[in-house]
Amino acid sequence: MNASVLIAPGEIALQRREVPIPAADEVLVEVTAVGICGSDAHYFHHGRIGPHIVNGPLILGHEAAGRIVAVGSEVSADRIGARVSIEPQRPDPTSSQSRAGRYNLCPHMEFFGTPPIDGALCEYVTIQSSFAHAVPDEISDEAAALFEPLSVGIAAVQKAHVTGGSRVLIAGAGPVGLVTAQVARAFGATEVIVSDIDAQRASAALQFGATRAIDPRTESVRDLMVDSFVDASGAPRAVVDGIAAVAPAGHVVLVGMGADEIALPVSLIQNRELVLTGVFRYANTWPIARDLVLSNKVNLDAMVTARFALDDVAKALVADRVPGSIKAVVRVEPSVLPKESR
Amino acid sequence: MNASVLIAPGEIALQRREVPIPAADEVLVEVTAVGICGSDAHYFHHGRIGPHIVNGPLILGHEAAGRIVAVGSEVSADRIGARVSIEPQRPDPTSSQSRAGRYNLCPHMEFFGTPPIDGALCEYVTIQSSFAHAVPDEISDEAAALFEPLSVGIAAVQKAHVTGGSRVLIAGAGPVGLVTAQVARAFGATEVIVSDIDAQRASAALQFGATRAIDPRTESVRDLMVDSFVDASGAPRAVVDGIAAVAPAGHVVLVGMGADEIALPVSLIQNRELVLTGVFRYANTWPIARDLVLSNKVNLDAMVTARFALDDVAKALVADRVPGSIKAVVRVEPSVLPKESR
Amino acid sequence: MNASVLIAPGEIALQRREVPIPAADEVLVEVTAVGICGSDAHYFHHGRIGPHIVNGPLILGHEAAGRIVAVGSEVSADRIGARVSIEPQRPDPTSSQSRAGRYNLCPHMEFFGTPPIDGALCEYVTIQSSFAHAVPDEISDEAAALFEPLSVGIAAVQKAHVTGGSRVLIAGAGPVGLVTAQVARAFGATEVIVSDIDAQRASAALQFGATRAIDPRTESVRDLMVDSFVDASGAPRAVVDGIAAVAPAGHVVLVGMGADEIALPVSLIQNRELVLTGVFRYANTWPIARDLVLSNKVNLDAMVTARFALDDVAKALVADRVPGSIKAVVRVEPSVLPKESR
Amino acid sequence: MNASVLIAPGEIALQRREVPIPAADEVLVEVTAVGICGSDAHYFHHGRIGPHIVNGPLILGHEAAGRIVAVGSEVSADRIGARVSIEPQRPDPTSSQSRAGRYNLCPHMEFFGTPPIDGALCEYVTIQSSFAHAVPDEISDEAAALFEPLSVGIAAVQKAHVTGGSRVLIAGAGPVGLVTAQVARAFGATEVIVSDIDAQRASAALQFGATRAIDPRTESVRDLMVDSFVDASGAPRAVVDGIAAVAPAGHVVLVGMGADEIALPVSLIQNRELVLTGVFRYANTWPIARDLVLSNKVNLDAMVTARFALDDVAKALVADRVPGSIKAVVRVEPSVLPKESR
Repeated sequence: MNASVLIAPGEIALQRREVPIPAADEVLVEVTAVGICGSDAHYFHHGRIGPHIVNGPLILGHEAAGRIVAVGSEVSADRIGARVSIEPQRPDPTSSQSRAGRYNLCPHMEFFGTPPIDGALCEYVTIQSSFAHAVPDEISDEAAALFEPLSVGIAAVQKAHVTGGSRVLIAGAGPVGLVTAQVARAFGATEVIVSDIDAQRASAALQFGATRAIDPRTESVRDLMVDSFVDASGAPRAVVDGIAAVAPAGHVVLVGMGADEIALPVSLIQNRELVLTGVFRYANTWPIARDLVLSNKVNLDAMVTARFALDDVAKALVADRVPGSIKAVVRVEPSVLPKESR
Repeated sequence: MNASVLIAPGEIALQRREVPIPAADEVLVEVTAVGICGSDAHYFHHGRIGPHIVNGPLILGHEAAGRIVAVGSEVSADRIGARVSIEPQRPDPTSSQSRAGRYNLCPHMEFFGTPPIDGALCEYVTIQSSFAHAVPDEISDEAAALFEPLSVGIAAVQKAHVTGGSRVLIAGAGPVGLVTAQVARAFGATEVIVSDIDAQRASAALQFGATRAIDPRTESVRDLMVDSFVDASGAPRAVVDGIAAVAPAGHVVLVGMGADEIALPVSLIQNRELVLTGVFRYANTWPIARDLVLSNKVNLDAMVTARFALDDVAKALVADRVPGSIKAVVRVEPSVLPKESR
Repeated sequence: MNASVLIAPGEIALQRREVPIPAADEVLVEVTAVGICGSDAHYFHHGRIGPHIVNGPLILGHEAAGRIVAVGSEVSADRIGARVSIEPQRPDPTSSQSRAGRYNLCPHMEFFGTPPIDGALCEYVTIQSSFAHAVPDEISDEAAALFEPLSVGIAAVQKAHVTGGSRVLIAGAGPVGLVTAQVARAFGATEVIVSDIDAQRASAALQFGATRAIDPRTESVRDLMVDSFVDASGAPRAVVDGIAAVAPAGHVVLVGMGADEIALPVSLIQNRELVLTGVFRYANTWPIARDLVLSNKVNLDAMVTARFALDDVAKALVADRVPGSIKAVVRVEPSVLPKESR
Repeated sequence: MNASVLIAPGEIALQRREVPIPAADEVLVEVTAVGICGSDAHYFHHGRIGPHIVNGPLILGHEAAGRIVAVGSEVSADRIGARVSIEPQRPDPTSSQSRAGRYNLCPHMEFFGTPPIDGALCEYVTIQSSFAHAVPDEISDEAAALFEPLSVGIAAVQKAHVTGGSRVLIAGAGPVGLVTAQVARAFGATEVIVSDIDAQRASAALQFGATRAIDPRTESVRDLMVDSFVDASGAPRAVVDGIAAVAPAGHVVLVGMGADEIALPVSLIQNRELVLTGVFRYANTWPIARDLVLSNKVNLDAMVTARFALDDVAKALVADRVPGSIKAVVRVEPSVLPKESR
């Protein structure tokens, strides 16, 4: 099969690889669409994210949808043909974090496109059957691929305790900020304020759930007194200003990745008894993602602003530089058929 | 002033009363609209609800909106003129329940229209300033009056742990069932199934948030496997069937009043670890009610199906017998002006 | 190996069985001690518990400790020799309940000693390695076996929201009532009132965490106004009286099994906004059990009032008829050595 | 009456003041014992804490016990004579934070000994009756005074989600660290590790609930992997190291006051989904404090290491400089009798 492989920082090549064979509890998925994430671009440009270093050829991509074409020995053959959204993680189900319902924190996690684990920018991938979530016909391949970033937004909104009547501030109108805004509205937030220094992005937020867009350079957020603040920017200044915007007993959720360390206003956190936490991927979000999209509470299709073929991944990885860009998707067409695996 | 007074079961009379004088921390509200609740009708017909017995003349009505016309000595005169929705309770703020944020459970509560405390079916009422919640111009008097039943729905949905992607079953398509359906949707429920043996009421539910309406006599709810069940019917059969419809670890909230005792399927509750509770009024819901109405997530105006004058309360109290009736509202016009109280 | 097998109601026989072979992720445990549970006795006497019917020969016993003597192919051989307490369940780790951290509610659960799954009243059992919890030397085999009923108490106390300063009522001073009393104290309860109609049992409670023992026939519990009530009796009268004893916003947890249906005071549950739920086994409790026993916050050894050999299980199953009996334990000695399995 | 008044930084004088007169809902308390807090000492030395500046004569002291000697017009005279522990706050019960059960976050709070509100280092104080908590005879005046710092420990342990089996790290073995250690144990923690650079203080911790004491200069805490970390030191280094010691999904509670800003390891907080918050005083803790002390789960008397008279407050304020000092208490004797106020 064809696979788009990161060879070295800045260098992507289309290579031939063996079609993988599903293990007993896995399915083989013919990939149809893969969203490009900021972390993919970061690996592409820098060859690492914090402690995660790309030491050999790596297939990127962890936002993927496809169709089941084969199943492992323990999986019902009825699944063959199903359109699926891939939850791109392989936790150890016996770890204490998995047992407690937080498999995203499993210390033995293998995650798509995080070195040295290959991702989905190729024609076929295997995944545990229960992580290949069936997708109804009403939902497109591209939307199904974007259940992954949507899941980040769901996790953020859950940890931010957003509920009916919540006032929410979101810093950053990139893809994660926009899905978070949509999810916040879907969970009942009645005010969703999105701040971004890019006017075009900020105004896009108004089409994706925001009730108000702010340019933080000209308008301070610090007096908003919201119930919840979600940082989807990773910018220390935005984090600090956002925390100041939260009313007593409110919630702060850090989603955006940036500096390892940020000088935080601890006395303010103490005096207001703010509750601050972070999001590390997600657990148990796919059924919610499906229901939110199916009920039109969240619109993922409208977020796709560019499409690329599998042999054009290098372009997809820099598509976010185009003004007005939100989310690039790689469309995958099979060049080979897999062998029967069952 | 004029007041509509319950003299004896089935007997309502318009009487003259003194305009009340606000205490230091109270405001005087000129009443504009009062919704009629099933409990008002129950007092009217039976003279009691459980242990609450009407032993003397009683002004009914606890769903009220109006305009502040005077204030007590500790209240800012700036409040005069404000349109307000009345939260019709007077808890003791020093009780341990109030201190813990559950003032609805305060053992020293005085509640509008619950004997021997007079309610709002009159021209003027006093209420603690902080329980006279300001209403923006976009919200009608009638909607402001209905913040009270809306608050019951909010409390029910909160206790039912409804959130993004929840599947919810609601038994009973009366006013409380309908606000609960709307609130469930507003809080992110993607499936809201309402059951009612009255076909007209059930179908009304589809206009108020329900995604599906069921006649429980012809279609069993027991296999629905919802996340949350809210009973707004008070019917033992509906309660038992609804509990059976809840998936493991799901929530059951009993709102409807009916029998003191119901034979409940405890082994099912145990085997599924269902969490069952009840709603007794509400606390801290008015700001949420306002935001939900203001953001058009909840429509109260469309629930008003009949209007009556203050001298026609007896008719309003039986208006629920008209097919298609949802909520009757009494419109109040002042016959006198209050004296200056400040 | 020898196994104690339930042949028919009231009939137990020692039979020879093959030593089981651990699957890849399992360990083989040489059983040392097995506690006798009320449910074992119920299967013995009646051949069924509700929908669970004994249709063929069944090995009872689900409170077990032992020593790892062999491991499956995916388990480290370092585990051989470890003393372990067995968590007697085999959930499907991919079910949505397991993924959410509630594997006890997994619909595909296989549980020791619940038909048709054999239990631990034999010389050797297999269990998934992660459910064979290592036990430090300070803890006896018998205490390790009783981590299972202790886990029921932990689950009950967690669901009852017991914390520092809680006042707790427990109905029933059987083994589950007594572990629950101990756990409640360990979790910070400052008042633990245990009711039992058997004076000897009630007074035993005072040695196991209770601060007060009540004979419910001579002293009503209904005015206690506790924060939490745990029923460990299964008696409808005790359940109803216990619910009446709970203060507003308090918790009710039903642990004892009894009638499928109980007439519950729903208006009281509503008016006080009590939260009622049940316990179905446990999840993630073994590490807590170990720490509570190791830190001497819970004493399990003192609960063992009778010991029996594997060929005397029929006597162990009726030992609870002896006045003063709390918990019978079957001590198992190996008659054979298992073959090498690795 | 006599009052110990802070005149200027470093300068305390005994002055004559009018005995205060209780308002309608207040009681007059003859003070018996007042604990000295680090914040009292800070005001004494520096004349300010952050934004709170001492601009005029101020009576310090907010850890107080006494005896009710008179009551306001709305308070039952039955209270006269009661020994009480004073909860030293006057929130506005109608603020939204108070209504939500978080009166400690009320924006209109008046707090004892925080400028410009006078505290309890005098002979008589008034307090709302419901904040004068009755103390049983078994509890000493000094212990009753120390319900206040105990309440800080209770709030910290609640926010740290300490429960049965928790492993807890506490940085700082001052009075707050020591009460927190005791409360953590009382709430079921089975491991309580206290770190302090002062060996004498660290070892004192072992007498107050700690299971292990650490000198952080010679032994790193970073590998402990505890469930909860409570900082009671205010030292940035201790905060950062303590956060690193918390296992995924664990809790961090900042109690110690220090720098306004600390550079925190946000990527670690994100990757482990730690939940960080602070404590600002307490709400609804006094009944818990009483029950913990009464049941001997917490020992406050043993924490009193020095006693002073009201004319010796200047010495009490520097008593913490004595090696081995934990808590200084000022014993107050009445020099006058109050006039009848009722």
